[in-house]
Amino acid sequence: MIARIAAVILAIAATELHADPLPSWNDTEAKARIIEFVESVTDPASPDYVTPEARIATFDNDGTLWAEQPLYFQLIYAFDRLREKAEKDPSILTSEALRAAAEGDVAGALAGGEEGLVEILAVSHSGMSVEAFQADVADWLETARHPQTGMRYDEMLYQPMLELLRYLRDERFSTWITSGGGVHFIRTFAAEAYNIPPWQVIGSRAPATYDEENRVLMKEPGIGFVDDAADKPVGIDQQIGMVPIFVGGNSDGDFAMLDYGSAQDGPFFGLIVHHTDAEREFAYDRESPIGKLVRGLDEGPAKGWLIVDMAEDWNRVWPQ
Amino acid sequence: MIARIAAVILAIAATELHADPLPSWNDTEAKARIIEFVESVTDPASPDYVTPEARIATFDNDGTLWAEQPLYFQLIYAFDRLREKAEKDPSILTSEALRAAAEGDVAGALAGGEEGLVEILAVSHSGMSVEAFQADVADWLETARHPQTGMRYDEMLYQPMLELLRYLRDERFSTWITSGGGVHFIRTFAAEAYNIPPWQVIGSRAPATYDEENRVLMKEPGIGFVDDAADKPVGIDQQIGMVPIFVGGNSDGDFAMLDYGSAQDGPFFGLIVHHTDAEREFAYDRESPIGKLVRGLDEGPAKGWLIVDMAEDWNRVWPQ
Repeated sequence: MIARIAAVILAIAATELHADPLPSWNDTEAKARIIEFVESVTDPASPDYVTPEARIATFDNDGTLWAEQPLYFQLIYAFDRLREKAEKDPSILTSEALRAAAEGDVAGALAGGEEGLVEILAVSHSGMSVEAFQADVADWLETARHPQTGMRYDEMLYQPMLELLRYLRDERFSTWITSGGGVHFIRTFAAEAYNIPPWQVIGSRAPATYDEENRVLMKEPGIGFVDDAADKPVGIDQQIGMVPIFVGGNSDGDFAMLDYGSAQDGPFFGLIVHHTDAEREFAYDRESPIGKLVRGLDEGPAKGWLIVDMAEDWNRVWPQ
Repeated sequence: MIARIAAVILAIAATELHADPLPSWNDTEAKARIIEFVESVTDPASPDYVTPEARIATFDNDGTLWAEQPLYFQLIYAFDRLREKAEKDPSILTSEALRAAAEGDVAGALAGGEEGLVEILAVSHSGMSVEAFQADVADWLETARHPQTGMRYDEMLYQPMLELLRYLRDERFSTWITSGGGVHFIRTFAAEAYNIPPWQVIGSRAPATYDEENRVLMKEPGIGFVDDAADKPVGIDQQIGMVPIFVGGNSDGDFAMLDYGSAQDGPFFGLIVHHTDAEREFAYDRESPIGKLVRGLDEGPAKGWLIVDMAEDWNRVWPQ
């Protein structure tokens, strides 16, 4: 009897040991390279062994962990809220950029450059406490639906990347988001969507002030920090203080972060999600205004970074 | 035989269960209140129970975890390095503040206000990579000694506070530093001194830029963020994104952070280290230019914050 129980336990253990950690990834080179890297840095006998506290993995969000077409979802939120407020009070539309955004004219809204964007974001992203802002984002996520897929925005996550995050955490990596999107916006759903706590989200931010009378943090208009391009390494240093050994991104805004990780002595894995799947998701790269990818494709392979071909390497895109 | 082994195991378990987590704290009200709070938020049957991921504890550094007299240790580092550089090249002393600092004239150096301080800090804190700066701080810590105690600066830690940090971590709190001192400076010794990893250090920072050619982060002159007073809640929001339930400080620069924690619904513990021990450490509060404490003493008790009387509540100050 005891022998039988032992045999069953061993069988279960063996199954778990060999269970596929990345079932939504096809058996292509991409999956093999990821697993090979993770095994090489977690095996104490390996020359590339890395201690758990140094197993830092950072990921871009838009286009890397969730979708970003036809427009960054946070901008869709900003346009939605602006339109609703303008319906009640059209006098708030004091510039070309604001008028275009309220009409859903993306090109017109973005034609105002950074100045126009700051005006648009200020309407929904400032003059309120952090708590009130996050409650509003949570409300929006409940009702807003993607114009093409009809899905909730916080369900347009890439299942293969969710599996990668979990696999890394199972192997005692810490998993961080480092996004050009707003930190308060992303924290609203990151715990539930990705199992990533607020302190492991790095993002752009508006200036904030502490209201000493009401004892709350207020979001102010303007730009505090833009966590993009050459400032992604700056954000990583501010909030982590260590160089990541695994970095995932999808656009040239992630190039500096990948290169920063690459430059260190010791093992590093760079991963770029290449959007090649017009059928199940979207296909875009060099010419896209959102998620433009040129340098990553041209220089990434020579740097040893993995270019993930969504159409070839993933057998599924969305969670079930 | 089995009964005997079981008895021994039970005896060890009982000893561990009742071992004093704060042996350097006297059996005064302070210790009792800390333990009572920790037990109330960690007991699942308690109405004040807090889940482990929300057990955020933040601590000021200067004067709370390590000493800060006669001058913040980071400024002593800055003055030391300035003096050494000026000995080789006196032409760098281009202002009154720089000349005063190089001569060790603290009052003269600080008379230049923020502008003078930025000039002084720029000499030792900018124009180098983060890695080079931290290597230099580590070198300084090896050789520099405190003028009064003759101790290494990174050994002038408060043993009772080290025990408190460990006790909280044992009870599944995460322990964070939120200091007006520089984040890169503190990270140099925080892992070894406090067992606090770099990402749990929040501090002031100079602007940083990513050098794309050399692929390193450079420290620039000037002020990026001053993590003090009303900006301590801002720093906590930037880097943690949750409100702490346990906050420790020692000066009015910590008042806003304590008050921010106090304002939330649910359990909160505020702790102020009151420097009352001229014999073993230093005695200072209302009149001190370093670590000035007025509001905390006047308003803290009514807010339910614990004022720790170093002379009465601690049976030991320094680690052995």
